Amino acid sequence: NKDWILGVSMQVYMSENGALPRLGKVLTADTMNANVKKVDYAVRGPIVQRAVQIEKELKEGVKKPFEEVIKANIGDAHAMGQRPITFFRQVMALCTYPLLLDDNKFPEDVKNRARRILQSCGGNSIGAYTTSQGIDCVRHDVANYIQRRDGGIPSDPDNIYLTTGASDGIVTILKLLNTGEGRTRTGVMISIPQYPLYSASIAELGAVQVNYYLNEEKCWSLDISELQRSLQAAREHCNPSVLCIINPGNPTGQVQSRQCIEDVIQFAAKENLFLMADEVYQDNVYAEGCEFHSFKKVLFEMGPEYSSKVELASFHSTSKCYMGECGFRGGYMEVINMDPEVKAQLTKLVSVRLCPPAPGQALMDLVVNSPQPGEPSHQTFMKVALAEKAKLTEQILNTVPGISCNPVQGAMYSFPRITLPERSINEAKAKGQAPDMFYCMKLLEETGICLVPGSGFGQREGTYHFRMTILPPTDKLKTLLNKLKEFHQKFTQQYS
Amino acid sequence: NKDWILGVSMQVYMSENGALPRLGKVLTADTMNANVKKVDYAVRGPIVQRAVQIEKELKEGVKKPFEEVIKANIGDAHAMGQRPITFFRQVMALCTYPLLLDDNKFPEDVKNRARRILQSCGGNSIGAYTTSQGIDCVRHDVANYIQRRDGGIPSDPDNIYLTTGASDGIVTILKLLNTGEGRTRTGVMISIPQYPLYSASIAELGAVQVNYYLNEEKCWSLDISELQRSLQAAREHCNPSVLCIINPGNPTGQVQSRQCIEDVIQFAAKENLFLMADEVYQDNVYAEGCEFHSFKKVLFEMGPEYSSKVELASFHSTSKCYMGECGFRGGYMEVINMDPEVKAQLTKLVSVRLCPPAPGQALMDLVVNSPQPGEPSHQTFMKVALAEKAKLTEQILNTVPGISCNPVQGAMYSFPRITLPERSINEAKAKGQAPDMFYCMKLLEETGICLVPGSGFGQREGTYHFRMTILPPTDKLKTLLNKLKEFHQKFTQQYS
Repeated sequence: NKDWILGVSMQVYMSENGALPRLGKVLTADTMNANVKKVDYAVRGPIVQRAVQIEKELKEGVKKPFEEVIKANIGDAHAMGQRPITFFRQVMALCTYPLLLDDNKFPEDVKNRARRILQSCGGNSIGAYTTSQGIDCVRHDVANYIQRRDGGIPSDPDNIYLTTGASDGIVTILKLLNTGEGRTRTGVMISIPQYPLYSASIAELGAVQVNYYLNEEKCWSLDISELQRSLQAAREHCNPSVLCIINPGNPTGQVQSRQCIEDVIQFAAKENLFLMADEVYQDNVYAEGCEFHSFKKVLFEMGPEYSSKVELASFHSTSKCYMGECGFRGGYMEVINMDPEVKAQLTKLVSVRLCPPAPGQALMDLVVNSPQPGEPSHQTFMKVALAEKAKLTEQILNTVPGISCNPVQGAMYSFPRITLPERSINEAKAKGQAPDMFYCMKLLEETGICLVPGSGFGQREGTYHFRMTILPPTDKLKTLLNKLKEFHQKFTQQYS
Repeated sequence: NKDWILGVSMQVYMSENGALPRLGKVLTADTMNANVKKVDYAVRGPIVQRAVQIEKELKEGVKKPFEEVIKANIGDAHAMGQRPITFFRQVMALCTYPLLLDDNKFPEDVKNRARRILQSCGGNSIGAYTTSQGIDCVRHDVANYIQRRDGGIPSDPDNIYLTTGASDGIVTILKLLNTGEGRTRTGVMISIPQYPLYSASIAELGAVQVNYYLNEEKCWSLDISELQRSLQAAREHCNPSVLCIINPGNPTGQVQSRQCIEDVIQFAAKENLFLMADEVYQDNVYAEGCEFHSFKKVLFEMGPEYSSKVELASFHSTSKCYMGECGFRGGYMEVINMDPEVKAQLTKLVSVRLCPPAPGQALMDLVVNSPQPGEPSHQTFMKVALAEKAKLTEQILNTVPGISCNPVQGAMYSFPRITLPERSINEAKAKGQAPDMFYCMKLLEETGICLVPGSGFGQREGTYHFRMTILPPTDKLKTLLNKLKEFHQKFTQQYS
């Protein structure tokens, strides 16, 4: 082989010469994966990086017009001062250090739970790998939870996959669906505004993002006619085969009606779309008259014509709801009507990463199986209520001329619309910034409040928003809202 | 728009008609991502699935010629009966349930460690999201560890990324490097035999797997001439830009000499290859005369011509070495000479998954920062020695005619070569099975021993191997080896 000989002789030449060839780096912005460059993730973008810097500056004694940064950019309950739930943490401590099973400080039900989890771990240690799909008894408990939640509609533990947070499950399903080239490329329908995990993963996989717009005028509801419009337009240039729904909504905080979910399922069935239901806020519903309806339940209530056909993956997490245990990265997904061969492929695919974190799996178990009345830990088990904070946010923001905020029905965010003066829009554009990024950056610099600009989630052309979580403790939330009010008025004056 | 009108009228038609269109599933083996189908992960493949089934059958009382399944397929220390290290678990329990900080059962150094970790968590809770790159103080401790390990060569915490086990870091770096089409497609050079995470991730990403063979005759050493051959051959059809090394080796258990590492770095520099050093077994070196040399250290000792140029990513994990905490999914990577723009892209990419599990990060911190002499927990801190088991495995296996086992110098596996009778090879082929899969499956059915066939890792054409971990407790390991010996003799007779 000639090339091979050439290679060897080059090697000899170069080691005689002693110098290395003058080549640039292997991995540069030009040579790297172009899809990764397209990824954008606003929730942890430049605003947050600047917020972290400002925190450091404050620590170093730099004078600012505020004393602390309030990070309302992300739904991170514990970082906002919410206390972990005692029962969860006691069981987790016993799983971690089983000698505590002999300590009479811990209630019997806590010990029983810890024992049960440990017995299903290899070598009775939470430090062993679990099966890739997740610990058996946890998957059974998840299936039982779903069955109770959905009024007895059966759930099969074999359809449950434990995940590293919900994000992991969502990306895994998108991977399975991602195929084709050019006009046959998989199109993924996502709501605008959306949670940027979706746009980021679609970009990374090289799939096609297909936008459908939520109706801000009708409290961010989902119109089937808009789904139809979006789908038809997408079919001109790709193969839209997946429809993603976030309910309760992120960043928009709306809760979908049962009728709407039924319509969406009908649409998916008719148009042959795989449904992905992001239901991580299923326990965060506050508004009167609103109720959480799972896609699974509605699907099965629609009868066998639908329940035997529509392919659905639904996602949940330990990070949201009343527990807010983000750091543990626990989650699960349930797959319905998945082709058995594809399911085998899914099981194989998740096995490459060995297993989700065992502590996160254990925590997921406790979440779906919380202490019942009569158990010793039931009285220490308190769910945190966000209804009051949701109301407060809506009310204060709507007193500000130029801010208009839909009711926060669920999840843990508000996504208010802001009117920005023409001059601020021009100044932002001159700086190459999105106008709401310009607004949020100024807000951060002047008040220490860290929000995420609406442009990071998507919004109708010419409208501007921000996302803020309603998680801060009530007094801090009030301070935040009033500072925001003051800032908005000043900003409007300054640029009018 | 004509299509749009067509879409609406179809909808009307179908709802009048009442019936759903008869379409197949959206996601089928034919329509799914073809790259995922190519993924293969032997360590958790059909043998292991059968082993799990057999365990269930044993529980249900099915009679077998053995009483338990011994899973020597995976390096899972705790599942093999190794006890977790008290110090690690005490600190983790306190981080999980901070009320235990007031309990006088725990030594002061344990409490101090837990306090320090909690102080660097949002809201002082391990349930908060961490920064995406990982908790600040943990990254500092990792950098200090590397600096100590490498005789003072500096390590910058900004170059440390905490990960969800080492696998996560390896896949992330491969993602960045994955680009091009056809002849410009990224080629990834991996050793044969290899750890199948590499082949699986390469398949999933659609990159090109470029094999270089380790030299079994010289105790699985790495020859530069073989690297050269492999590279030149690959350049005919793709763009090989990455060289992956596993040291100490998995599945082969060899430890590379300092000279070999220097040669590899020289080769990478000359050929403009990005180096990925999988060093998760850095604390698992037993053989006399063998020593672990990190790629980072050797690179810097080679002088600025290399240390300022060669791009390197090195990986470590909480799952291996003496701690074996697989379930926590902790790990880190250090990137050296990475282009700053690419690093910014890397930071962005990892932010999409929010953060690695916080308990895994905390554990990584303890691993790199274990109790020192004089600290109260130092005496409870015992490292597990595998040297004896390594020797035992090699010795017993080499007494079996038809099995030949290289010395196990490091890691936690042996990869013995087996001679298979012609008739068994033919019978396997008739069944469409790899001959070593046929062998391992029979071994499992007859003895309950679960190993992984060499074909799952790659091997020279016409040679056969299996991988077994040396982790089982000594008495169980002896039983395993003697049963294996007996089985091999019987198998050889039966098929001769």
